[in-house]
Amino acid sequence: MDHFENTIAAPSTAPGGAVAVIRVSGPKALDCADHIFRGKTSLAQAKGYSLHFGSIREADGSLIDEVLVSVFRAPHSYTGENAVEIACHGSGYIVSRILARLLENGVKMAAPGEFTQRAFLHGKMDLSQAEAVADLIAAQTAAAHRIALKQLKGGFSEELAGMRSELLHLASLLELELDFSDEEVEFADRTQLRELVEKVLAHCRKLIESFRLGNAIKNGVPVAIVGNTNSGKSTLLNALLGENRAIVSDIAGTTRDTIEETCNLDGVLFRFIDTAGLRESSDTIERIGIERAYEKLAAAQLVLATLDLGAPLPDLLASARDIAGRVTDEQQLVFLLNKADKVRTDAARAAQEALTPLLNAPGRQVFVISAKSGAGLEELRHALAASWQNLDTASETTLVTNTRHLEALQCAAAAFDRVRDGLCTALPSDLVAQDLRECLYHLGSIVGEVSNNEILGNIFEHFCIGK
Amino acid sequence: MDHFENTIAAPSTAPGGAVAVIRVSGPKALDCADHIFRGKTSLAQAKGYSLHFGSIREADGSLIDEVLVSVFRAPHSYTGENAVEIACHGSGYIVSRILARLLENGVKMAAPGEFTQRAFLHGKMDLSQAEAVADLIAAQTAAAHRIALKQLKGGFSEELAGMRSELLHLASLLELELDFSDEEVEFADRTQLRELVEKVLAHCRKLIESFRLGNAIKNGVPVAIVGNTNSGKSTLLNALLGENRAIVSDIAGTTRDTIEETCNLDGVLFRFIDTAGLRESSDTIERIGIERAYEKLAAAQLVLATLDLGAPLPDLLASARDIAGRVTDEQQLVFLLNKADKVRTDAARAAQEALTPLLNAPGRQVFVISAKSGAGLEELRHALAASWQNLDTASETTLVTNTRHLEALQCAAAAFDRVRDGLCTALPSDLVAQDLRECLYHLGSIVGEVSNNEILGNIFEHFCIGK
Repeated sequence: MDHFENTIAAPSTAPGGAVAVIRVSGPKALDCADHIFRGKTSLAQAKGYSLHFGSIREADGSLIDEVLVSVFRAPHSYTGENAVEIACHGSGYIVSRILARLLENGVKMAAPGEFTQRAFLHGKMDLSQAEAVADLIAAQTAAAHRIALKQLKGGFSEELAGMRSELLHLASLLELELDFSDEEVEFADRTQLRELVEKVLAHCRKLIESFRLGNAIKNGVPVAIVGNTNSGKSTLLNALLGENRAIVSDIAGTTRDTIEETCNLDGVLFRFIDTAGLRESSDTIERIGIERAYEKLAAAQLVLATLDLGAPLPDLLASARDIAGRVTDEQQLVFLLNKADKVRTDAARAAQEALTPLLNAPGRQVFVISAKSGAGLEELRHALAASWQNLDTASETTLVTNTRHLEALQCAAAAFDRVRDGLCTALPSDLVAQDLRECLYHLGSIVGEVSNNEILGNIFEHFCIGK
Repeated sequence: MDHFENTIAAPSTAPGGAVAVIRVSGPKALDCADHIFRGKTSLAQAKGYSLHFGSIREADGSLIDEVLVSVFRAPHSYTGENAVEIACHGSGYIVSRILARLLENGVKMAAPGEFTQRAFLHGKMDLSQAEAVADLIAAQTAAAHRIALKQLKGGFSEELAGMRSELLHLASLLELELDFSDEEVEFADRTQLRELVEKVLAHCRKLIESFRLGNAIKNGVPVAIVGNTNSGKSTLLNALLGENRAIVSDIAGTTRDTIEETCNLDGVLFRFIDTAGLRESSDTIERIGIERAYEKLAAAQLVLATLDLGAPLPDLLASARDIAGRVTDEQQLVFLLNKADKVRTDAARAAQEALTPLLNAPGRQVFVISAKSGAGLEELRHALAASWQNLDTASETTLVTNTRHLEALQCAAAAFDRVRDGLCTALPSDLVAQDLRECLYHLGSIVGEVSNNEILGNIFEHFCIGK
């Protein structure tokens, strides 16, 4: 593999700090670093896990910076290769000069995620663990951090390995039958086989279902704010994001492709789905606009229905009933009687009472607020966070958080369904075995036992440089 | 000093990278880090300059992250104290948890620049070297980097030490006279004394003068774009900054207070002085607006005079003459015949010829350009960079780049003038000796031999956190 011939380098810290770290990995890492370094000891001769103070010089001998170099020897490094980490002053100029000196000495610039890709290719971690590195860096809450860390430490991989070993046992029984197919012998007890299949399939489905929660933890609970035009949706969004808006920019430079409006309330991450549709509807295109907003509503796990207290009560109720009718029992629905600053207290109370019949499902609540003045928002924030506190304990179990893993599990489950049907309808063993192999293939793709350059490219190009 | 009793910590890398480093320094650095760390060896027992892989845990034992810890023992560390550097995954959540765990164990958050301040207080570097650390991190060009590095390595301090030892010799001669003042003996040869004073004063003045160049290298050559309203000043500024504008944002998070529009042309940094004054002038306040623009013009080392080729030639010439009359011989003046896209080539050539008499001083040039279409801008950029290439070689000599140093040198020179005058007018030796002591005081304040908490506070509060 040509991956292992090159020596690569990249800064692994963000620009702007007091200190910058440049990572170098590959067969020539020690020699190349030694060539531009002057210190008491030679880096090329240094032991692994040793630390060296010295200077990095230009080709003409002039000083670039005084640095601290950490030396790692294969396989005891992040990548599994010989590696050095050069810590210098956090100046963009210095970092660029040190990199230039390394490149002059035959080192190549690392592609995004290339260090982690090498760690995978050298067997330091499987693919789902490599993906967990990116998740760990992007984690914004304790729960997201816990899931990523668990995946990084191999918890998810172990669970998959358990499923695969059961499947391999099943496959070996079926293949044995195939070898003796002329003799029409059934080695495997079909009832026992079916039980095994049901058990593994149930496990697979449980993992698929966990994505809903896992995704809420990793990317935030998807929230749709719906309601009539002028009911105060955008004012509410701005008020909720409020001082937390800054958090959004904190995750720039991480591995996430798009940054939506997210906010962390008491340790729970919420992600606001844009429902501009309703706002922009006019009479002629009203239907389309409403349809779009309802589509987004369906993707949400939490629906915030804003209702204008200034509107006539029958209109307000009609709007509330319409929204309630669209929300499933799996979704949390919170009615917000907005613009409390504009109406009398008894009018707000009357509206609140009128809504009571609609609170007939678990997770439904009503709040009287003013998005404009901020009244009632503190209570709303706490209530939202409190009703999702279970995310924190849920993160103790194995949750699927990665779309690639979800898709692989769905493919595995579909193949598995065919295995089960095959066993029930007494399909020839060779066809059942083929479906089983497909199932194993998809499960294996999660940890990277089967992979190709395209898959690897897709995964690692979303990493940041230097990781 | 209570500085030495606390153990302090701060992240020393910017948020957003693959790796983050947290620095801990102080008497309890090893014990506190050891308390939250689990690895093969105890950090508290570890040797200096050793590297340890392990994990940082929450109080309940749950994993926060796997980390690499570097251990340093006093005095062999940046601060001169016991210190550790914890390298973890570059996640804001992980960094905040590790810091929280350190704070739980009695560590205090470090103030901006507190690590470098401790290095100064422990005698690891003098004050001008400490200031050079901030300059080194902020350096954007090879020349600025070279000056900061030279100052950091003590080049400037050595030069000051040379001046001070000559002054101390002078002072001791004068003080000897004072001891025997009753006897009216002149121990020191007055001519020799005056020669010594002249020599040191000349050195001091040379350093003061070097600030002009040093400041241009460190903060950029100050450029004023002047010209009549609608002559295309702001279009020119935008065109010159062009793709280089991104460079400005790169230095956020460094120690500079305000970020002006700067751009790096072929390794030379230019800093554009806002001359909005002229643009906003109306008939009634025209005089004030023009006055302001001319004040800014006086502060510039390079004046770009934009002239509208579309204006009648006599008006254009009047404007050019007015500007030329305001520019001193020390300033570089470049006429830009702008809006070349709007006139015929021969009209542009005629204007160019008409300007020839104004190019009668060194450093004066004329260019025909179109800020709008970009015509001629490439040549202009190269010419500007080329005429300041001397900055690169100038940075080999000692240059003053710091306003605090400039002020101290100016105070020293003023006191020194009084010493010289005193020697010439045969002022009593005790008065001369007093001026001499003042001179020594100011020179000593540069390297921090005399300092107080206010001075130190002013210097280090401009550092970034973690340095």
